[in-house]
Amino acid sequence: MSAEIYYKSIPITKSLVPDFETIAPEISDILESGRTTNARNVEELEKAVADYLGVEHAVAVSSSTAGMMLTIKSLGLSGEIILPGFNFHSAADAVLWNGLKLKFVDIDPETWTIDPEKVEDNITENTSAICGAHIFGNPCDIEKLQQIADDNNLKLYFDAAHAFGSKYHNKYIGNFGNAEIFSLNSSTSSSPGEGGIVTTNDEELKDYLLTGRNYGDEVELGSQFPAFNARMSEFNAILVRYSLQNIEEGIRSRNGVVTKYRNVLKNVPGISFQETTTHSRSAYNEFAISINTDEFGMTRDELAEKLSEFNIETRKHYYPPVHRLKAYSEHVQSSIDLPVTDELSENVLSLPIWSQMSSNIAGKVCSSIQKIRMDTVK
Amino acid sequence: MSAEIYYKSIPITKSLVPDFETIAPEISDILESGRTTNARNVEELEKAVADYLGVEHAVAVSSSTAGMMLTIKSLGLSGEIILPGFNFHSAADAVLWNGLKLKFVDIDPETWTIDPEKVEDNITENTSAICGAHIFGNPCDIEKLQQIADDNNLKLYFDAAHAFGSKYHNKYIGNFGNAEIFSLNSSTSSSPGEGGIVTTNDEELKDYLLTGRNYGDEVELGSQFPAFNARMSEFNAILVRYSLQNIEEGIRSRNGVVTKYRNVLKNVPGISFQETTTHSRSAYNEFAISINTDEFGMTRDELAEKLSEFNIETRKHYYPPVHRLKAYSEHVQSSIDLPVTDELSENVLSLPIWSQMSSNIAGKVCSSIQKIRMDTVK
Repeated sequence: MSAEIYYKSIPITKSLVPDFETIAPEISDILESGRTTNARNVEELEKAVADYLGVEHAVAVSSSTAGMMLTIKSLGLSGEIILPGFNFHSAADAVLWNGLKLKFVDIDPETWTIDPEKVEDNITENTSAICGAHIFGNPCDIEKLQQIADDNNLKLYFDAAHAFGSKYHNKYIGNFGNAEIFSLNSSTSSSPGEGGIVTTNDEELKDYLLTGRNYGDEVELGSQFPAFNARMSEFNAILVRYSLQNIEEGIRSRNGVVTKYRNVLKNVPGISFQETTTHSRSAYNEFAISINTDEFGMTRDELAEKLSEFNIETRKHYYPPVHRLKAYSEHVQSSIDLPVTDELSENVLSLPIWSQMSSNIAGKVCSSIQKIRMDTVK
Repeated sequence: MSAEIYYKSIPITKSLVPDFETIAPEISDILESGRTTNARNVEELEKAVADYLGVEHAVAVSSSTAGMMLTIKSLGLSGEIILPGFNFHSAADAVLWNGLKLKFVDIDPETWTIDPEKVEDNITENTSAICGAHIFGNPCDIEKLQQIADDNNLKLYFDAAHAFGSKYHNKYIGNFGNAEIFSLNSSTSSSPGEGGIVTTNDEELKDYLLTGRNYGDEVELGSQFPAFNARMSEFNAILVRYSLQNIEEGIRSRNGVVTKYRNVLKNVPGISFQETTTHSRSAYNEFAISINTDEFGMTRDELAEKLSEFNIETRKHYYPPVHRLKAYSEHVQSSIDLPVTDELSENVLSLPIWSQMSSNIAGKVCSSIQKIRMDTVK
């Protein structure tokens, strides 16, 4: 059985880029005003995001990492922060830039999100906060985490990089914990721009964030706390606002793609999926499968290599896991054991997904996976 | 004598904003490519900057603070960093984000830049680096600082936020120490955009910075050190590149404005100036005077207030001085005494200056200052 090669490659994601003509008047306005940062377009974006999510405050920042750095600073955290081992490492960077200690814990094998039991096991007198993460858009077990935070007098914030548009008990992600931090660059949303949004219902925290993104400066008083320049550019605000226009349609479409992927691939031995609970909706800004080498007949790495030969782009998110990256080797707690994270990290593979992707393309990816397997196990 | 009010206000600075038509094709290209960050325009900007300054490497980052944060991280600094008390506070923020200690020292009363003797007095076994700053564009005493750094095995880097285009012994600022960090936003250059540039002749440092601005990630290996997203947007790169087109003309023009200011104001009792050494050229991205209350007949604050009534914008850079800001109160060394910084901070006032400003406008500012004084001391 010979495999079809897609001469026009299938990328892992595609941004929703506006036509030049569509945004030309707004770009022209920016230049005329001479205000390229934190002006009208940023304000309108913040209002649009807060309205869409139904949250009190949305603060635009230069990136989600900057947003997490300032959130930790603004919440006045100290000591240790508990966070999942399976996640993009910027959540760990934000902790380290604040001079605090990392406490990585394992994830749930079904939802791939932070395991509340493991969180409880790892709380010490030095713990000041829990950082949950809605991996690939899948909301983590917010209720249990909030209960644990309340019981132990801890702050709770969420790395919501992938979760713009995700829902939990019919409420949008962005409404939970002390703050949630979204990413708005091309790998985590439909926008081709860059930036982050911090959402919160806490007015005091919002004021800190507004001050913090502008060097910690208050007009009359000067710098109130050590911060930096984390302002979002007007140009990026326009791109992000544009990508929000058809956001619900995009999420429905991506959920359709996932349904297609699952319906076909569930019949392939050795492939399993991240499970979303019945009370959640994932925005599926990423979609990943997990490969069981014995059952599938080849490793995740071999499959990725073969798909690449077929011109189909994939990603190993997240391999190596954060706690095994060189950057954090001296910052990881001494006796660390994250078997679920380690195993998933070896086996997980992100497949192409974007808002305008047709089910037909998902079908081609599935066929390729099936063909690759058949060629190997025959 | 009644004072003239300028109904069209005189701002402290004006950016060089391109016409929409001028940059429209480049914006269109960005959208077509879908790559809005760290792509062709950023690369071209880096090359243009390196060529202009005659330095090996120029690395574009999201802001000069981000550039300093990553420079400190990349140089592997530890312990204490010596820096001037008279400066914008972002140099201190960059040290604190790295978890290091601040050691503020006093400035020279003539040049308003860090005093090398005070640097020497404050070196301890914990000192790892000296941070000089070319205040308002005036190069600090680089030769002596480099000698001190060499003698004590310290790193040396410069906050060059105001000094794009400044020269020292006929060489452009950007070529000195281990690295120099420029700012490219509207208050520190002619560009209406935002961003920073780190220059260095050290290839290893350049590689660290390139990795650092992209989360510390290397393609195959993942994160090598804790960093963050400090990428410059393509849109800002276009704006900055545009502002570079007539940079020498702009610097000559600003030097002309300063000559006008000095020629008139030197005859006003109680006004003194920042002195540039004969082997230096200041780019004068800011121009400030210092007020002696007794001789001038009123305080700096009173003068600023009066000028504001005349619709002339001024700034008190830097008041309060960094070591007296709330943000750093718990980070300042215990026995701190910076009499020159403290005095200057009380008396300094930045006047309007920008590249296209006519000497005529400088003349109006001077007349207003003279009138205000005459009205008071008559």
